Amino acid sequence: MKYNVSCMLSYTVHSRAEFVFSIQAAVLEVQQVLEEELILSPEGICMEAFEIPGRPERLVRIRVDQPCYFTIGYRALVDSRPRILQPPAPDTDRTVTQLSPAVLPYLFPSRYCQSDRLFRFVQMEFESAEGNYARVEAICDWIYKNVSYVSGSTNTHTSALETISERQGVCRDFAHLGIAFCRALSIPARYFTGFAYQLLPQDFHACFEAYIGGQWIVFDPTRMVPLEGLVKTGHGLDAADAAFANIFGDATPVSVQVDCTAMEDETPDPPAGGHLLSFS
Amino acid sequence: MKYNVSCMLSYTVHSRAEFVFSIQAAVLEVQQVLEEELILSPEGICMEAFEIPGRPERLVRIRVDQPCYFTIGYRALVDSRPRILQPPAPDTDRTVTQLSPAVLPYLFPSRYCQSDRLFRFVQMEFESAEGNYARVEAICDWIYKNVSYVSGSTNTHTSALETISERQGVCRDFAHLGIAFCRALSIPARYFTGFAYQLLPQDFHACFEAYIGGQWIVFDPTRMVPLEGLVKTGHGLDAADAAFANIFGDATPVSVQVDCTAMEDETPDPPAGGHLLSFS
Amino acid sequence: MKYNVSCMLSYTVHSRAEFVFSIQAAVLEVQQVLEEELILSPEGICMEAFEIPGRPERLVRIRVDQPCYFTIGYRALVDSRPRILQPPAPDTDRTVTQLSPAVLPYLFPSRYCQSDRLFRFVQMEFESAEGNYARVEAICDWIYKNVSYVSGSTNTHTSALETISERQGVCRDFAHLGIAFCRALSIPARYFTGFAYQLLPQDFHACFEAYIGGQWIVFDPTRMVPLEGLVKTGHGLDAADAAFANIFGDATPVSVQVDCTAMEDETPDPPAGGHLLSFS
Amino acid sequence: MKYNVSCMLSYTVHSRAEFVFSIQAAVLEVQQVLEEELILSPEGICMEAFEIPGRPERLVRIRVDQPCYFTIGYRALVDSRPRILQPPAPDTDRTVTQLSPAVLPYLFPSRYCQSDRLFRFVQMEFESAEGNYARVEAICDWIYKNVSYVSGSTNTHTSALETISERQGVCRDFAHLGIAFCRALSIPARYFTGFAYQLLPQDFHACFEAYIGGQWIVFDPTRMVPLEGLVKTGHGLDAADAAFANIFGDATPVSVQVDCTAMEDETPDPPAGGHLLSFS
Repeated sequence: MKYNVSCMLSYTVHSRAEFVFSIQAAVLEVQQVLEEELILSPEGICMEAFEIPGRPERLVRIRVDQPCYFTIGYRALVDSRPRILQPPAPDTDRTVTQLSPAVLPYLFPSRYCQSDRLFRFVQMEFESAEGNYARVEAICDWIYKNVSYVSGSTNTHTSALETISERQGVCRDFAHLGIAFCRALSIPARYFTGFAYQLLPQDFHACFEAYIGGQWIVFDPTRMVPLEGLVKTGHGLDAADAAFANIFGDATPVSVQVDCTAMEDETPDPPAGGHLLSFS
Repeated sequence: MKYNVSCMLSYTVHSRAEFVFSIQAAVLEVQQVLEEELILSPEGICMEAFEIPGRPERLVRIRVDQPCYFTIGYRALVDSRPRILQPPAPDTDRTVTQLSPAVLPYLFPSRYCQSDRLFRFVQMEFESAEGNYARVEAICDWIYKNVSYVSGSTNTHTSALETISERQGVCRDFAHLGIAFCRALSIPARYFTGFAYQLLPQDFHACFEAYIGGQWIVFDPTRMVPLEGLVKTGHGLDAADAAFANIFGDATPVSVQVDCTAMEDETPDPPAGGHLLSFS
Repeated sequence: MKYNVSCMLSYTVHSRAEFVFSIQAAVLEVQQVLEEELILSPEGICMEAFEIPGRPERLVRIRVDQPCYFTIGYRALVDSRPRILQPPAPDTDRTVTQLSPAVLPYLFPSRYCQSDRLFRFVQMEFESAEGNYARVEAICDWIYKNVSYVSGSTNTHTSALETISERQGVCRDFAHLGIAFCRALSIPARYFTGFAYQLLPQDFHACFEAYIGGQWIVFDPTRMVPLEGLVKTGHGLDAADAAFANIFGDATPVSVQVDCTAMEDETPDPPAGGHLLSFS
Repeated sequence: MKYNVSCMLSYTVHSRAEFVFSIQAAVLEVQQVLEEELILSPEGICMEAFEIPGRPERLVRIRVDQPCYFTIGYRALVDSRPRILQPPAPDTDRTVTQLSPAVLPYLFPSRYCQSDRLFRFVQMEFESAEGNYARVEAICDWIYKNVSYVSGSTNTHTSALETISERQGVCRDFAHLGIAFCRALSIPARYFTGFAYQLLPQDFHACFEAYIGGQWIVFDPTRMVPLEGLVKTGHGLDAADAAFANIFGDATPVSVQVDCTAMEDETPDPPAGGHLLSFS
């Protein structure tokens, strides 16, 4: 389905600063960017588009050398048609020695996903489910049931361990906890970022992908949006590795506006959680 | 110079387990592996050598399906001749927009290196040094002076934040703290693992590489060994991403023995910290 | 019932050190000390018995001025007859404004019991139980079911927040978690230390007391011993405030031996958890 | 000198809530309350004044049973004349076995002051100073130099360990860090709360008292106010134990206004840090 996605980020640059943005829709087999534009203000600021080898993000980096009110806007028409999968059977589960080498780094703990401290937790709560797909479903159920979505309850330092105790967070925290639980079960998992149709209020969204039966499958323990309505911007180990914006230098964020609308007469049919989807 | 390196790791496998080892000397422009062998016991266990795209480690993974006392031994003759560099001048420092995209992931906080919480610390302590090379030197001086090397004082959960308060650790903790400080200064840094000549007692060693003036330069805040005597096995975001052994399943480590000897009449001349070196 | 309790603690004093011990059975309305002795070695070391105003511990402090192998032994015959209570009805619950002022400090977070971070957790898990007694029962059930008793799995820095994630610990950790949950529900709770009949292997034991319906009631989420078989040494905010030994100076613990036996033909009848008891 | 102190705290009570306030000037040998009044709104709300045995705070507790906008105001005229001390000589330092038993609880780690993790830190940084007074001076110098006062940079969960890494905080964090360092050196220390003349902007203030040479001496590592201008409300283990307000139930703080003015023609002479003072 086709979505109009857009965002507008603004910053006060006090002296000078550099930015790395990951706000463009990724170009994937299942996701086409039909039109797009990036607009910077003030005029005259240069940007460089680039990619990191082996990763899907379409990044831009920008240097602002003078104090100013800096904005970057993005607008695109994207056709996103994630593949619909059947739930992987337990006998397709892969052990570590069967995994594609490229996915191994997604087994290890990362800044916000301290899976090394959760082995006993996942054994108690999730290991009895039969097969990795059922385990990740159980993980999402646990998070949905036990963690409250509370805007503003966490900050950029909040990690999965804190969310387990404090039982509240935003989409980012839900995703980090899902990833940490998966990795503690030796299931590769990565942070998924994108635009999300029907997200209220509109913002960048985060959920996660788990690698099951040879596929990266999308899971969203917030259950706030239809997965069919996601437009992927990128993925990474966690929010540290896949932020929509990284600021280096002396600048302060002022505002973030995000929007994602479906082209008329095309709306995702299934309710949240309806289909099993992959963007890879 | 040529080094004989070897290690022998042993495990009790209680039921079944998988292992990923990163114990082989890397093959680099500056490091040649002249001879080597890997020996597994008991006989009949299969291993698969593999690499992760974009990374230098020569990994092996092994599945042990029955309870046993499992050992893996490695022995190699390695010719390691890291490049000797001149200290990079401040005017060769690169800003984020000038960095090679491949090094950007080494700017972000990771499991054991929470650079996102250290911005003010590094401003106060290191930013006044002129240029990135002098800053990383100041970082190593600070760590050497303020953190005591105490065997057994930390564990696999210990991270840079704890080392700042507790002021003790082992090579791994020294490296994590160095990396965290560098990244907080927007200097890319990564965890370096290898064999180390003259390390007493012998063990796998860890230090770090910082990316300055377009080069990955080795720094070792423990100052325990001559950098000329390092034989690199790999690098990564931190010890979570670059462990010499990852165990998945039901096995317990029993012992680790490591050795690194120089071929006679060839010893590294300079004392610890004598030369500026790069393995890339 | 009458118990013979004893302990023998030994330390290597490297240069000089001071010790504060809380190893003597408390003298309480429900607990009589019939005989007791404290033995120090080497001879000639002086000790001072003292109490802290408002607290039940019978403390001793000792200064050792020379390097030596120092031991302190304690042996006592104690008649412990904790009061048997009926489960307090919900309508006897006291709100904060009805509590005795002396118990208020046991409502606040302490070193190992960060109740300030658990408000949402306890709301979700325990608040639906009717009345404070049922809530503390639910807390003990949760801990017993979700936390594994694993000797050596934690250390003196481990706090309740970590136990929630790591799901393992020893009696001290079980007690800290119970206390933290109670306080987050505005139920005063304190750390209880003592000897424990039928504890295997024998050691000092820790559990907790919650203040319900105007009584301090003992709870032990480990369910390892009959509560009737406890001999109280003291209580406090948590293990930081109620340690059996505090060392100041240059000494290393060598061993701890503890024993608690019932006088023959008198054994506590009820199984673990059988009666509701108070030592106050 | 005489000070007019006042505060006005307001809350939205959503359903019902209880409050414990510690906002009244303490009555001490060195501090007289000449006039005072407490005003609650809406009318008809009852309060109970009470004290906790062994503690100086004059507390009030209040139950609000209906949704309302609740305010509590306090106004007093206080004559505060803290004793001026001479710096204690090193030979008056007391070892643990020489301390008054009542001060021992102030040696142990507490919620926000994890002194158990700072033994090596204080050895490295402060132990070389001669005597406990010089050590606490060195502690305050270190904090003043290394931690930036940044309004809003921390929250109610922030503890001393975080302040060591993050190097920023408010008066509460400065006090917690000072206390943690003192306790790690076996110097009893407690959290001091009060009104502060010349504090800009006006608010409740926190600093700490260390027990040296048999006296509780006030130290303020923020160096923001003259110590002569303090009006003490209470003390405790840390901010968990000595909060100016504790809320139990369903209420949200709306605003805090604090004021402290000197009676005309009486102003504290010495600049911040001028005299050594005790309120005990």
